[in-house]
Amino acid sequence: MNKRYALAIHGGAGVLARDRMSDDLEAAYHAALSLAVQAGETVLRDGGTALDAVTQAVCALEDEPLFNAGRGAVFTADGGQEMDAAIMDGSGRRAGAVAGILGPRNPVRVARAVMERTRHVMLIGDGALCLAREAGLPFEDPPYFFTEARRRALDETLALVERGEIDDDPARRHGTVGAVARDRTGRLAAATSTGGMTGKRKGRVGDTPIVGAGTFADNDTCAISATGDGEAFMRCCAGHEIHARMRYTGRALADAAASVVSGDLPRYEGSGGLIAVGADGDIAMPFNCEGMYRGWVIEGENARTAIY
Amino acid sequence: MNKRYALAIHGGAGVLARDRMSDDLEAAYHAALSLAVQAGETVLRDGGTALDAVTQAVCALEDEPLFNAGRGAVFTADGGQEMDAAIMDGSGRRAGAVAGILGPRNPVRVARAVMERTRHVMLIGDGALCLAREAGLPFEDPPYFFTEARRRALDETLALVERGEIDDDPARRHGTVGAVARDRTGRLAAATSTGGMTGKRKGRVGDTPIVGAGTFADNDTCAISATGDGEAFMRCCAGHEIHARMRYTGRALADAAASVVSGDLPRYEGSGGLIAVGADGDIAMPFNCEGMYRGWVIEGENARTAIY
Repeated sequence: MNKRYALAIHGGAGVLARDRMSDDLEAAYHAALSLAVQAGETVLRDGGTALDAVTQAVCALEDEPLFNAGRGAVFTADGGQEMDAAIMDGSGRRAGAVAGILGPRNPVRVARAVMERTRHVMLIGDGALCLAREAGLPFEDPPYFFTEARRRALDETLALVERGEIDDDPARRHGTVGAVARDRTGRLAAATSTGGMTGKRKGRVGDTPIVGAGTFADNDTCAISATGDGEAFMRCCAGHEIHARMRYTGRALADAAASVVSGDLPRYEGSGGLIAVGADGDIAMPFNCEGMYRGWVIEGENARTAIY
Repeated sequence: MNKRYALAIHGGAGVLARDRMSDDLEAAYHAALSLAVQAGETVLRDGGTALDAVTQAVCALEDEPLFNAGRGAVFTADGGQEMDAAIMDGSGRRAGAVAGILGPRNPVRVARAVMERTRHVMLIGDGALCLAREAGLPFEDPPYFFTEARRRALDETLALVERGEIDDDPARRHGTVGAVARDRTGRLAAATSTGGMTGKRKGRVGDTPIVGAGTFADNDTCAISATGDGEAFMRCCAGHEIHARMRYTGRALADAAASVVSGDLPRYEGSGGLIAVGADGDIAMPFNCEGMYRGWVIEGENARTAIY
């Protein structure tokens, strides 16, 4: 068996169009992605689990205001912030998810607490916040999560809606962060976290916290974390669909992942992308839009980051 | 193509043990199941859609206090009621779901409003209630949903928990209602609605509103509605797994459905069952526990109901 670890992360398929991306901002994105890869890789290099690696990588992305998760999450139509997250352990398909929360610094840790401290898979709203408090997880006040850029994005989206137009700017629509990993013993894990879509309806939950849609892991096949039009990922059960194509048709990871992103997603009017790691440690990062903030590393090779 | 309609419904895999079931109560269950089958069959006989048929059948089950959905929903650990529901149209895999709501008389209608009136698939809590009001759906005051039997079940569960025991009585744990249908034109649909598990943690969401887990429909393969240990159904992505086995391995509906219920569910420590209707109008209703309240009809045959 291949004993090399592998890790991939994403900061969302909602990249800024090239003509709006300055050199400084692009450098900042690459630096932030590098830090998140390092956070996950450190765990794997020290012999830690895939589960811990994706937790650390997603926490780093949640802490970074550039990305739409945790600090820097987007705003709902009524000016609030509602975060969703999930984590899945490919060993025994343990899973935890939360939706509609504001307060915990790292929503992915609350998802992990659901997995490890309850018999449940999903907790929403106040119930999830209660658990986060029981688990002693750190909370932050609303100003911590606020960013001027996201607030401006909401104003832009609301202005478009006011004029009866649809906001099809991926930079406002597609933010999410996620990580997938394979550790040296062959365990897989996936984690995803998001503030959702700018201007989303209060209470809207996308694919991020849905096991089998935006987040999925099974040691026998793959670990998946998606980003993009959540509703399309939900309708095609993207994560589990990739698993099923690998398991039942013998398709390789890259082929199964690409076929879902380029075939199934458009059928449900979805754009976006996903990161995937296979049982053998191979990595795939297909997307069907302008770009996807991403980073990856395979043991023995240099870590890399990319946007377009 | 087969032009006969087919409909199956369930009132949950949480049946009362035979020694606690009186003749009168058993007759009441059969009568309630018959009414729900009739509600759905009337739509199909009149040339209506599978989507309308499952909506009507589930509304009938929600309105019946014997079943754990809508009126008669179970109580959470803190004495509240939180309902989840989903509906999926096998034509284009349109879907709508709600979680954590109390107020609308028929949660399945709110799920349908999500599907038909928004661009989203899932709304939770207050956001879902806002939509229900916008859609003009009927609301009820809390006493409407209250039943003495469910309140007693909560007291029993809490007493067990107090003594450090686990409540493994399916009658308290497994309540859900659902319907699957195929109309004469070959369209499939599924709907599921639940109050969840007695004594559940506030905010807990099970498989019912999760597309691909407790509710799934695709005209090419099957429509599925599940009931039982929701977490196990979520981890094995039960609905989509049955679809995948049919699509990629050519298994027949009955075989694919039975293999998930008897093979996958126990692997994730789950008991329960599901109802399924295939593209050809065949029906399967496997369960791995003592019974499942159920009813079914195929055009030209007599409707039937069963419990054990």
